[in-house]
Amino acid sequence: MHIVTATTKLKNDRLLRALRREPVDATPIWIMRQAGRYLPEYRATRERAGSFLKLCKTPELACEVTLQPIARFDLDAAIIFSDILTIPDAMGLGLNFVEDEGPRLERPLRDVASIKRLRVPDAEQELGYVMAALRMTRRELGGKVPLIGFSGSPWTLATYMVEGGGSKTFSKVKGLLYDQPEALQHLLDVTADSVAGYLNAQVAAGAQAVMIFDTWGGVLSTEAYHAFSLAPMQRIVDQLHRQHQGKHVPVTLFTKGGGAWLEAMANTGCDALGLDWTVEVNTARRQVGNRVALQGNLDPCVLYANPDRIKAQAAKILAGFGRGPGHIFNLGHGIHPDINPDHVKVLVDSVHDLSRPYHAG
Amino acid sequence: MHIVTATTKLKNDRLLRALRREPVDATPIWIMRQAGRYLPEYRATRERAGSFLKLCKTPELACEVTLQPIARFDLDAAIIFSDILTIPDAMGLGLNFVEDEGPRLERPLRDVASIKRLRVPDAEQELGYVMAALRMTRRELGGKVPLIGFSGSPWTLATYMVEGGGSKTFSKVKGLLYDQPEALQHLLDVTADSVAGYLNAQVAAGAQAVMIFDTWGGVLSTEAYHAFSLAPMQRIVDQLHRQHQGKHVPVTLFTKGGGAWLEAMANTGCDALGLDWTVEVNTARRQVGNRVALQGNLDPCVLYANPDRIKAQAAKILAGFGRGPGHIFNLGHGIHPDINPDHVKVLVDSVHDLSRPYHAG
Repeated sequence: MHIVTATTKLKNDRLLRALRREPVDATPIWIMRQAGRYLPEYRATRERAGSFLKLCKTPELACEVTLQPIARFDLDAAIIFSDILTIPDAMGLGLNFVEDEGPRLERPLRDVASIKRLRVPDAEQELGYVMAALRMTRRELGGKVPLIGFSGSPWTLATYMVEGGGSKTFSKVKGLLYDQPEALQHLLDVTADSVAGYLNAQVAAGAQAVMIFDTWGGVLSTEAYHAFSLAPMQRIVDQLHRQHQGKHVPVTLFTKGGGAWLEAMANTGCDALGLDWTVEVNTARRQVGNRVALQGNLDPCVLYANPDRIKAQAAKILAGFGRGPGHIFNLGHGIHPDINPDHVKVLVDSVHDLSRPYHAG
Repeated sequence: MHIVTATTKLKNDRLLRALRREPVDATPIWIMRQAGRYLPEYRATRERAGSFLKLCKTPELACEVTLQPIARFDLDAAIIFSDILTIPDAMGLGLNFVEDEGPRLERPLRDVASIKRLRVPDAEQELGYVMAALRMTRRELGGKVPLIGFSGSPWTLATYMVEGGGSKTFSKVKGLLYDQPEALQHLLDVTADSVAGYLNAQVAAGAQAVMIFDTWGGVLSTEAYHAFSLAPMQRIVDQLHRQHQGKHVPVTLFTKGGGAWLEAMANTGCDALGLDWTVEVNTARRQVGNRVALQGNLDPCVLYANPDRIKAQAAKILAGFGRGPGHIFNLGHGIHPDINPDHVKVLVDSVHDLSRPYHAG
């Protein structure tokens, strides 16, 4: 399988070119959580799977839903369908999804002893279902668009591992941060090494770009962000195999609410930064210069509006980035489950149409 | 009553001096949600009241809990105990609190017709219980510390009025924003005028400073923040009676997650800005110069740590602001209900002790 995928020529390389800040004919677009509940075909597969976790852990089904938005829309990338909590699950914390309540870890880390016991999982063994899904999807894509792999950031994973699920206040994990920073540091070190191994295995299995989702870095103070979210991401970037079969594998860092720290993020040596919608793309570009590509950043709620308003908002972001390469259009966060899929088509097609003038000549 | 309060000399004027950027002997401190569930005496009064809403609407009880933290700690201000949703309640939307689930509005605004029907409530009549609580508290304080009045910002109130309660995605109110901006604009205009009237009535009833809590401004894009959160706050600032009985009444604006917009906020002509903990206080001070005082910004979760670590974190913020007047110490958001009150005492006393060198000579 590896040989087949490595020699299949990519028919649409806009994403990889934009990530390398090379010229493109139109701005590439993909959508965070593009394989998701807003699609009726996703809901049908999810129903067949029986549970969200079963969907994640069955390579054939994960592959199927990964490909659904690619069949429906003119998207420039596929992103493997999975969950950010696969690593804590592989570490033995026991992942479960409670309907309408989000993820739960059955055995959260509530003392230093349980943190000390954490081990880096063997990605090929314990997360083999993700690698199988990647291999299958890469083969099925047949070079139509590139395939993105991903992981949660160590800090973001740590919030779930300590809280046991989502949180509004992050009291437990931040209590650890302020009262026992050495214990949190150990947790983050083990998790960073786990993420690095996981992403490297994803690249070996066919991921042509990788992204680290730091969903909760924005709840930290600047000092704490640098120490407990950015430093572990740096540790990952340093361990990533950035070359695979002669190709550069770009890495994108995305800290939601991280608008104040873009320069520091760019200094990690990553290839691109994800932007949420609270940041202005022209301000971000001024801050990071040509060091990295930028991905984003339409407010997901714009997709509730009518097509003309969606086009107008997309046009503003394209104008904000302006001419030249290095922009990947996306939402500033995952698409909401009650969005009309027709509105997604409007967005995807508008971004291609409206962006051509910025790449001409 | 008015005559008594107006002639009672304020024994501790650190807060008002700091808000005017005048020299003080030590940095004043108060704590957002200082009258709250972390205090056993609050829980006892809340129990007696029967419900949270009853506690808000009974002036004697609201006064009682307002004074509790002042009796226990060496705080430099009292803030009237109330809820930010009193205005939507007075507008007839029907406020209720579901235990452990937060506020619910029984009749949320789900169409343009219901938005068009909104009227500015008469603060003295329909929010008279807040004014009664302020008059009583001001009298009971006897000039010990100044009394702060407050309101939610129009955008923040609008999120609850449209969503019907708290939200993770703000889909409904942002759907309105992107699809029917004129309707949202009308809602915000009426709400801004309501807040202005409400705060002016609070000042007449004894509030010596006022604060506008924009809890949810940070979920907006920069453009949307300016149009739909900051502009309505500007409308309020322009209508506020900034002089009362010969005294300047300072107004503080606080947008949680608004770190990128501090200069624009300072340009409203407000007296001070609240900072959440994601902003560095020295960076903020550089940005706004001497136009406004700054309030904040300890991560509320620092109070989970042991006393030495609390002191160290407080010291960092004091050093961050540095010498000179214009700093009011506070948390970057409300105190969590499971904080040990002894830790609050450590913080309050540490801020006074550690700040004196910055105000000496």
